[in-house]
Amino acid sequence: MATGSRRALLGGLGAGMVLAGMNGRSRAAPARRIGYAIVGLGSYATRQVMPNFAGCDHARLVALVSGTPAKLDQYGAQYGIPATHRYSYADFERIRDNPDIDAVYVVLPNSLHAEYAVRAAQAGKHVLCEKPMATSVAECAAMIAACRKAGTKLMIGYRSRFEPYNRLAIDLARSGYVGRTRLITAEHGFAIRPDQWRLDRALSGGGSMMDIGIYSLNAARYLTGEEPVEVSAIESTNRSDPRFRTVEDRIGFQLRFPSGILANCLSSYSSGHNGYRVIGAQGWINMEPATPYSGQSMMIRKDGVTAPRILPVAAKNQFAGQLDHLAECILNGGTPIVPGEEGLADLRVIEAIYRSAAERRHVAISA
Amino acid sequence: MATGSRRALLGGLGAGMVLAGMNGRSRAAPARRIGYAIVGLGSYATRQVMPNFAGCDHARLVALVSGTPAKLDQYGAQYGIPATHRYSYADFERIRDNPDIDAVYVVLPNSLHAEYAVRAAQAGKHVLCEKPMATSVAECAAMIAACRKAGTKLMIGYRSRFEPYNRLAIDLARSGYVGRTRLITAEHGFAIRPDQWRLDRALSGGGSMMDIGIYSLNAARYLTGEEPVEVSAIESTNRSDPRFRTVEDRIGFQLRFPSGILANCLSSYSSGHNGYRVIGAQGWINMEPATPYSGQSMMIRKDGVTAPRILPVAAKNQFAGQLDHLAECILNGGTPIVPGEEGLADLRVIEAIYRSAAERRHVAISA
Repeated sequence: MATGSRRALLGGLGAGMVLAGMNGRSRAAPARRIGYAIVGLGSYATRQVMPNFAGCDHARLVALVSGTPAKLDQYGAQYGIPATHRYSYADFERIRDNPDIDAVYVVLPNSLHAEYAVRAAQAGKHVLCEKPMATSVAECAAMIAACRKAGTKLMIGYRSRFEPYNRLAIDLARSGYVGRTRLITAEHGFAIRPDQWRLDRALSGGGSMMDIGIYSLNAARYLTGEEPVEVSAIESTNRSDPRFRTVEDRIGFQLRFPSGILANCLSSYSSGHNGYRVIGAQGWINMEPATPYSGQSMMIRKDGVTAPRILPVAAKNQFAGQLDHLAECILNGGTPIVPGEEGLADLRVIEAIYRSAAERRHVAISA
Repeated sequence: MATGSRRALLGGLGAGMVLAGMNGRSRAAPARRIGYAIVGLGSYATRQVMPNFAGCDHARLVALVSGTPAKLDQYGAQYGIPATHRYSYADFERIRDNPDIDAVYVVLPNSLHAEYAVRAAQAGKHVLCEKPMATSVAECAAMIAACRKAGTKLMIGYRSRFEPYNRLAIDLARSGYVGRTRLITAEHGFAIRPDQWRLDRALSGGGSMMDIGIYSLNAARYLTGEEPVEVSAIESTNRSDPRFRTVEDRIGFQLRFPSGILANCLSSYSSGHNGYRVIGAQGWINMEPATPYSGQSMMIRKDGVTAPRILPVAAKNQFAGQLDHLAECILNGGTPIVPGEEGLADLRVIEAIYRSAAERRHVAISA
C-alpha cells in the first residue's frame, strides 16, 4: 500500500461486493427485521455501513443520530428516514420512545463510545459499537455492566470475523493445517492525513495502535484463539511532525501466548501495509491484504508448495454479515461472537502495550 | 519454507549459480591468487564454500584443516591438495611455515571461532571467519585485537553482502526509493534436525538466534545502515522438546534505530521462513526468500503498484564474491566491507537480545 488515506487503504471493491451480496442472496427475508439507529454520520458510517443494509436479511436502517442537521437532512432523504426518526445528540434519549429502533450502532470517535453505548443501553436498546470498543478497560467494563443491567446485547464491530478469508484463516490456523502454529506476524498501517479527528487524543484515546494497530492485535488473538500472557512494545514517534503532537505514530509489539506462539506485530500512521502471516511447523498462511473492506488475498505454503487460495464471492459481505449477526442474536436470543468482552480483551492488551512502551519493560497480562 | 533441514532452506540453485559465475567471467585472472586454508570440513565448507573457488578470480583453495583424517584424504584428493597442505588441529600452527597459505577460512562450530581466528592471526595469516563471529562480544574483541597486532586482515562471512538482490535492497532502502524507511520486518527460521551440533550450547553458544536469527538482525542493520539503540526480545522455547535442552527455539526481537526506524524480527528453530521487508513512506521492498544460498526473489510496491524486480544472473555468486573480496583486500591493501567490527556489532545486539528476553525489559545499546 502506498501513501494514502485510511479509506484508500481499507476500501476497494466495496460497492461491487454489495451488489454481489444482494444478487447472491437467495433466502426469503424473515417477517421482522431488526431496526438500527446509526449514531454518528462520519465517513465510515455513511460510506461503508449505511449502504450495506441493502445486503442484509435481518437488519434495516430506521433512524439517524447526528449533531449536524444538514447530514440528517441529506442522509435522511437518501435512505427514506422520516423526520420523526432523526435525532440530535441532545435529544438522543428520545430513542427510548421509538419502537422501530431495536439497536444502536455507535460509529462516533473512540472517546464517545462508552457514553453513547451506556446511554443506548439505558434507553433499552441493543448496542453495536465500533472498535476500539472504548479508550480504556474501565470504560469497556462500564459498557458491559450497563448492557447487562439493561438486558441488552452488546457487540463490537470486528467486521473481519464476518469476512470469509479471515474465517478460513482462523479455521486453518487453529486446526493446524500448516502444522501447529509457531509464529504470527501482523502489520497494519497507513499514512494518515493531518486533518483527522484520530490525531486528537481527546477524541481518539491514542494513535495508530487504537485505530489500525488493533487489526494486528485482534488478528493475533483470533488466529490463535488464545489470550496473550506477556507483551513487549517499542514506540517510535517523531513529535516534530504536526500530526503526532498528541498521539503515537509507530508501535511494534510482541505477544507471547500460553501455547508458546509468539506474535510480532506492527502499527503505523506513517506507512501503508495490511497483512498477517500464520507460520506453522509445516508452512504458512499469508493474508495480504488481510483486513480491507474488500479484496482479501490468501497464499498458503504447505509442505514446500506455495499456492493462492481463492474463495467464491460471499453471498453477504462483512458489513452486512455483521449487521445481520447482531440482528439474528436479538431475534433468536443468541450471544454475538464478538461481544463486549472481546473488545475489552483488546483494550486490556492495548493498555499493556502502552505501558510496556512507556516503562520500557515487558508487561505480564492476566485475564 | 516447509519443515526441512537448514541445508534445504538455504540451498537451492547453488551449482547452477557457480556455473553461471564461471561462464559469465570475462576478466583475465590476475597473476597471483590468494591461497586459502579451510578450517573445518563440515557440510557448509565442503558443499558450499569449497566448490565455489572454481568461480573465483583472486582466490584459490590450497590447504585443508580437519580432525578427521578420512575427510582430509577425501577432499584432499578431490581438490588436488597435496599431503603437505593437509593439517590436523594439533599441528594447525604449522600453517605458519606454508607460504602458499595467505588466509584461513574458519568454518568451525561457533565456540571455536575465536580460538582458531586468533591462532591463525598469530601464525601470520589473514582470517575469514563464519558468522556468528564468536559467542560473545569479548571473544570478538579478542579476535580483532589479535588480527590488528599481527597485521592481518579479518573479515566475517556475511555472504548476503555479496549477493546482488541484497545489495540492491540496501541501495534502494538507504536511498529512499520507496520513501524514507519507517519499518522493517525480518523472519528467518527452519525446523532443525535433532542431530545438529548447533543444538549443543557448548559448541554453538546459543540457539536459533546465533544461527539463523542473525540473518534477520544483520539484515535490519545493513538495510538501515544504522546501529540499534534499543532492543526488546521475547523467547519461546519448549524445554521438553529434546532439541531444546540447552539452546533456545524461537526469539522475537524488536530494534529501534536512531532515525526512528523500528525493526520487528523473528528467529526460529521450529518453523521455516526466510524473508524481510523494508517499509517506506511510499511503499515497500519485499525479499522472500531473502538470504538463501541462491534463488532470492524481490517484489517492490511503490506508489500503489506491486511488481517483481528481476536481476540478471550475477557473473559471480555470493560465495565466490566473498572469497574474492578478502583476496582483493589482501592483494590491494583494502579493508573488507564486513570486517571484524561488523561481526562484533551483531554480537553486541545478540547479547542485548538475550539479556532483554531473560530480564524481561528493554535493553539500551551503546556503541
